[in-house]
Amino acid sequence: MINLSISLLEIPAYQLHWFDYIGYFGSFLTSITFIPQVYKAWKTKSVGDLSIWMMLIVVLSTIVWLVYAFAIGSGPVIVANTIVFILSLILIYFKYRFNR
Amino acid sequence: MINLSISLLEIPAYQLHWFDYIGYFGSFLTSITFIPQVYKAWKTKSVGDLSIWMMLIVVLSTIVWLVYAFAIGSGPVIVANTIVFILSLILIYFKYRFNR
Repeated sequence: MINLSISLLEIPAYQLHWFDYIGYFGSFLTSITFIPQVYKAWKTKSVGDLSIWMMLIVVLSTIVWLVYAFAIGSGPVIVANTIVFILSLILIYFKYRFNR
Repeated sequence: MINLSISLLEIPAYQLHWFDYIGYFGSFLTSITFIPQVYKAWKTKSVGDLSIWMMLIVVLSTIVWLVYAFAIGSGPVIVANTIVFILSLILIYFKYRFNR
């Protein structure tokens, strides 16, 4: 019993709130946002309707969010934006690779 | 001089850090992400290359982020996700309006 009590005391005091899990779920959804678009572009080799400006804004915004996330030390935001950053770079590559 | 001192004391203690401005800039960029895509879709009336799954994930993720943002009381995240939510709904409407 004494050992159990000591173990419990060693658990960090910080508790995750319900909205932290909502945040993690949001990060997960944001991470996978461009996966269907990358897949569709790869499958159809057609990217004419995609806005290059949208992709460039996404790249810039993920860089900005990464700076912010490292500053506040937010793991989920770092992971989500790294994935979106990579996927948006792939889309930009496809945009040029499959002509317009 | 006494009045000035009292005025200064009444200024809230919370100071914005440099990374808060980075966060606002990220929110701004995220807000405008879909504007070029909505404009392009409207102008060309062509949306065949856009992934409907991407748009549906965006809608769902903005709802999740809005719940999170209201829970933690983050104004910039609320504003950014409301704008992205509306723009992604417009894109989904275009996707059906201009057929595929």
